[in-house]
Amino acid sequence: MTLRILFEGGRTGPWRVTGTRIVKGIGLAPVDRLAVSVADHKGTPAPEAGWRLQGACSNLRYTTSSESQALRSIQPELGRGDANHATLIPIRKSQAWWDLAQDERRAIFEETSHHTKIGMRYLPAIARRLHHSRDLDEPFDFLTWFEFVPGDEPAFDDLLEQLRATYEWTYVEREVEIRLIREARAV
Amino acid sequence: MTLRILFEGGRTGPWRVTGTRIVKGIGLAPVDRLAVSVADHKGTPAPEAGWRLQGACSNLRYTTSSESQALRSIQPELGRGDANHATLIPIRKSQAWWDLAQDERRAIFEETSHHTKIGMRYLPAIARRLHHSRDLDEPFDFLTWFEFVPGDEPAFDDLLEQLRATYEWTYVEREVEIRLIREARAV
Repeated sequence: MTLRILFEGGRTGPWRVTGTRIVKGIGLAPVDRLAVSVADHKGTPAPEAGWRLQGACSNLRYTTSSESQALRSIQPELGRGDANHATLIPIRKSQAWWDLAQDERRAIFEETSHHTKIGMRYLPAIARRLHHSRDLDEPFDFLTWFEFVPGDEPAFDDLLEQLRATYEWTYVEREVEIRLIREARAV
Repeated sequence: MTLRILFEGGRTGPWRVTGTRIVKGIGLAPVDRLAVSVADHKGTPAPEAGWRLQGACSNLRYTTSSESQALRSIQPELGRGDANHATLIPIRKSQAWWDLAQDERRAIFEETSHHTKIGMRYLPAIARRLHHSRDLDEPFDFLTWFEFVPGDEPAFDDLLEQLRATYEWTYVEREVEIRLIREARAV
């Protein structure tokens, strides 16, 4: 069993949505606010006029031991007091991606597309947590959550541009980008 | 989204339980029969005096392209008319396993423990389907389903003995083995 995180887009929650961009495929309904919580698995209905996405904080799927050590030495925790900007990026990859064997996916992910290497360049500025959704009857395969201070938003834009230019991204068939600012007082 | 399979142990279903063996850790309540179905995700309660387990038919996690091609060339489909013996083996691995990086798990799985190579020796006799449960709030990480003709039961016993003797199996902390026979008339 792994920790499952719930992202509820609607009218409440401490994160104010500053923009929703449909990068590829079908979008998500525009919402005002986002709440992030540990899922209680009770199957509560989606928030009124909004959406609910969830994902599991699961084991590493491609990262090698040496990459993992390098990441651990530099990556920050979520929830840094001054990192009040966040972005949620739900992504779905194509069936062609999932039909590849493990070594083929790994080769595209890192040896060809340098996914980890690119991400490392933006550490410790851009904190990140990956949530796996594909086996959960969810519309996306992954939900990636990023946190950073306002001044690092240009660096974050750079990071996204580089990742989206990779060969790996040709397998992405749906992607939405939801930009957020945490407000002092939860609504 | 992946196909999710539901295994319901209780008083109904076409598979009659001929034996339940606790291999390691906590067992499962003994039941008379087993039903296997595609999950409808409605969260129906567990069958009376029984249990319900589910798992997703997900992508390959360790298998390389060449191993996958070799497997595809020889492995049979489930549901062969004369393969009326089956076994369900729910397994949970330790946190130490899940904390390993991808290359470390792969090395133990195949280069050290020859998991795929051992399984290949028993193909096409022993049909097999793996279901992933770890990210689904389930008590086990994997549910493996095997089907074979009665005469191949000794070969199946051999397969289990070889796998359980591997270094990979030192990471197994819970394992139950449920032997089954399909009866002509569903109950």
